[in-house]
Amino acid sequence: MTKTNPGRFFEDYRVGDVIRHAIPRTVAEGERALYHALYPARGAIYSSDDFAARCGLDGSPLDDLLAFHVVFGKTVPDISLNAVANLGYAEGRWLKPVYPGDTLRSESQVIGVKQNSNGTSGNVYVRTRGLNQNDEVVLEYVRWVMVRKRDAAAPAPAEDVPQLAKVVAPADLVVPEGLDFTNYDFELAGEPHRWGDYAVGEIIDHVDAVTIEEAEHMLATRLWQNTAKVHFDATFREDGQRLIYGGHVISMARALSFNGLANAQMIVALNGGAHANPCFAGDTVRAWSEVLDKAETDAPGVGAIRLRLVAHKGAPGDTTLKGEGGKYASHVLLDLDYWALMPL
Amino acid sequence: MTKTNPGRFFEDYRVGDVIRHAIPRTVAEGERALYHALYPARGAIYSSDDFAARCGLDGSPLDDLLAFHVVFGKTVPDISLNAVANLGYAEGRWLKPVYPGDTLRSESQVIGVKQNSNGTSGNVYVRTRGLNQNDEVVLEYVRWVMVRKRDAAAPAPAEDVPQLAKVVAPADLVVPEGLDFTNYDFELAGEPHRWGDYAVGEIIDHVDAVTIEEAEHMLATRLWQNTAKVHFDATFREDGQRLIYGGHVISMARALSFNGLANAQMIVALNGGAHANPCFAGDTVRAWSEVLDKAETDAPGVGAIRLRLVAHKGAPGDTTLKGEGGKYASHVLLDLDYWALMPL
Amino acid sequence: MTKTNPGRFFEDYRVGDVIRHAIPRTVAEGERALYHALYPARGAIYSSDDFAARCGLDGSPLDDLLAFHVVFGKTVPDISLNAVANLGYAEGRWLKPVYPGDTLRSESQVIGVKQNSNGTSGNVYVRTRGLNQNDEVVLEYVRWVMVRKRDAAAPAPAEDVPQLAKVVAPADLVVPEGLDFTNYDFELAGEPHRWGDYAVGEIIDHVDAVTIEEAEHMLATRLWQNTAKVHFDATFREDGQRLIYGGHVISMARALSFNGLANAQMIVALNGGAHANPCFAGDTVRAWSEVLDKAETDAPGVGAIRLRLVAHKGAPGDTTLKGEGGKYASHVLLDLDYWALMPL
Repeated sequence: MTKTNPGRFFEDYRVGDVIRHAIPRTVAEGERALYHALYPARGAIYSSDDFAARCGLDGSPLDDLLAFHVVFGKTVPDISLNAVANLGYAEGRWLKPVYPGDTLRSESQVIGVKQNSNGTSGNVYVRTRGLNQNDEVVLEYVRWVMVRKRDAAAPAPAEDVPQLAKVVAPADLVVPEGLDFTNYDFELAGEPHRWGDYAVGEIIDHVDAVTIEEAEHMLATRLWQNTAKVHFDATFREDGQRLIYGGHVISMARALSFNGLANAQMIVALNGGAHANPCFAGDTVRAWSEVLDKAETDAPGVGAIRLRLVAHKGAPGDTTLKGEGGKYASHVLLDLDYWALMPL
Repeated sequence: MTKTNPGRFFEDYRVGDVIRHAIPRTVAEGERALYHALYPARGAIYSSDDFAARCGLDGSPLDDLLAFHVVFGKTVPDISLNAVANLGYAEGRWLKPVYPGDTLRSESQVIGVKQNSNGTSGNVYVRTRGLNQNDEVVLEYVRWVMVRKRDAAAPAPAEDVPQLAKVVAPADLVVPEGLDFTNYDFELAGEPHRWGDYAVGEIIDHVDAVTIEEAEHMLATRLWQNTAKVHFDATFREDGQRLIYGGHVISMARALSFNGLANAQMIVALNGGAHANPCFAGDTVRAWSEVLDKAETDAPGVGAIRLRLVAHKGAPGDTTLKGEGGKYASHVLLDLDYWALMPL
Repeated sequence: MTKTNPGRFFEDYRVGDVIRHAIPRTVAEGERALYHALYPARGAIYSSDDFAARCGLDGSPLDDLLAFHVVFGKTVPDISLNAVANLGYAEGRWLKPVYPGDTLRSESQVIGVKQNSNGTSGNVYVRTRGLNQNDEVVLEYVRWVMVRKRDAAAPAPAEDVPQLAKVVAPADLVVPEGLDFTNYDFELAGEPHRWGDYAVGEIIDHVDAVTIEEAEHMLATRLWQNTAKVHFDATFREDGQRLIYGGHVISMARALSFNGLANAQMIVALNGGAHANPCFAGDTVRAWSEVLDKAETDAPGVGAIRLRLVAHKGAPGDTTLKGEGGKYASHVLLDLDYWALMPL
């Protein structure tokens, strides 16, 4: 019997199954420093204990996307080792900040399967939960992937496609306990723009750009213990290129969006997202955002803002999203839809 | 109104203005580890809690230049976003060690302005202070930069150029509280040479060299939350090269200088410095030092040594500094003048 | 007198001499995070405080090889600065886990010398010990290197070659105090295979691969304060290539071996090892293991497994070790022989 992990194939997933993913991980100041070295992240709450404490938190939590990547990375050996494509995200919510010293693990429940018409692959829907050392859920999200079948002749399972919310309803957003923006220091945060200054439909070009290096995306991807071969082995793809983990592009774009959205402090929901085109080393990544919606919250001084975050490798200022036929333009890398918290 | 930061232009600076820079930052063991990964830093006080404690400190502080870069990085969006050139440093002093867990922020006071004769730019002089979470000043320095005008027709401000000390006087050096080198362990520190072994005028070629990589200088520069586009965006300059943050060269040269100056433990003053030529990935950086002066201090067993630190990308052993007409030789990257503390 | 370190030459070593290596180093969460970013390390004990505590330890120690590299790095300026070749390892034992916050230093005793017949170099054998802040030995190993003579005319010392064990006897393995695998969670650890599932002679191809980047091996090597020029200075070798520190290949291979050996949790002995061929940036590193032996231990639920770990840059699945004449095949980088602890 081979001892290496062959990964699961489409016919191995059954709706209702719960997969306990391997390798709990204690995250601390080291992961925080690396996050700041890998991305131009400057959000004040995730940078300063002092600033975070003045906003009512127990010191500075680890970046919301850092928590996401750690939770996501654990699912790769069980969910996407034989995936052909990462198709989408939905119903993502951050439920509790992660602090240095916390230990994270992940569990996924299979919530849907649908064989493709060609019979060689199918879509698998999972709801993943990240838990801390006290078994509290720190975040959850749904993703669906297209997975190869081991045996094309295996019978198709009953089609079962979950109903997923197009967007997390404002009433379902969870504001971290204690968060209070009434004494928010806009000067220390880096920009004067508050929730009321943003209009639905407004587009913000974030101006800055980063040219991607092989060493950097590999350091990032390993840090989340995501070891999918395609990111690390230059001999794996026929073109000799290492495909960059989509989460690297998410974090890069989010960090670039500081310039214009410095006060969109904490991500609390992921409504959806598409990795529109692959990203490779040498690409220069830029980002723009569109304000999709706004909502109030019960927390003092805290508003919610729904943003589309687009990463692209096109010319500065190019905010084209889709071309003819509604397909993503070829320079677009990422189209992400999320809710963040912002001072009123 | 655009929400991204356009930066300040020459006419936006007024002598006396105090700018509170954004994004306080908590620094800890992660930043220390990254500093050791990015530079061949081996100073025993900044490496070992035990060694530092035997020298009278409360454990191992974060590297003096790490503190400098964090403080400096915060000033970039307000001071040098529209800078044409970084012209000089003066009157830099380290006033208090920074320990893991400290939160740093920066403030700058405009202390001088002088419009250039062509009317399109001018020099701005600022005194920057780095403060910790208790509002104690941990370091301060003056730097001056040439900044573009937004509008060439804007009236020139009254010329006001500050008198700056050519060198920090020995009496003004601040030795960290408690520092005591009377039981200094030269063997563990790595070299037997003490303060008395160095002669003014002596030149030390540090022998070692490092070839610079894009990924490394970007990791370093982001770590200090210095997000100036020119360091990250390969499409920004016409030649397609990313300019390396001058501070990366400073730290690289200082770390290389361990070989011959292992006991120049703590930097306490920055007398001046010039980034003589730009540095790019692929350059192989070497360093040499010249002993410029020596002074005693009141602390037990502690002497001060004033050093010129030169980084260059020339041949091994080439200690040429300037060529015809007194201009820096084309292979010289950095000419830095600082005071360090050394056991007697 | 030159102040830089010229290193020791063959005639400087005398059997019985003890060399106290410089620069004690405090290691913490930052080094742990960097280790996870540099290598695809996923061992659960070294990843999670929680998992480690359930195995009877005081939280998650730092990776066994991280401790090895820190201890080894300190010896470079005294042992291998003038080395022509790193010839072998023997009698390596891990005696005590290293925890975040510990301070490590190294000492080496010269245990053998043997001049080569050509008279220009000789082999030096040292037993190195890594000690923590309480002067407890955390690991020890023997290595021997070929070192140049300063002066070929210097008289040859009496030949004194130590008798070294070919393999650390099972009775000499030190299991960390408190280690207990009776409630081991195989699901969280990542694989179901236990000690009893492995057969002597079994070969495991670890499937995964990583293409090596200059920035990454330099970050790693500096992190261990190993500053041998050949790893950093692209102008040093005539071919313009930076030789990768052999320890980088060891850690890469060990991390790749997770896929098939996830439960070979802790390395407790290094029986021997050879760096068969040099490794350079651009090489794609793969690994395979062979089960060489198995032994029981006194600790509850804990077995020992002796493994050959081979790193190579050949085709996927190529498990050739040696070619004609018993020489290592040209694609083989590393042949390492170690004992690890595994749940029964």
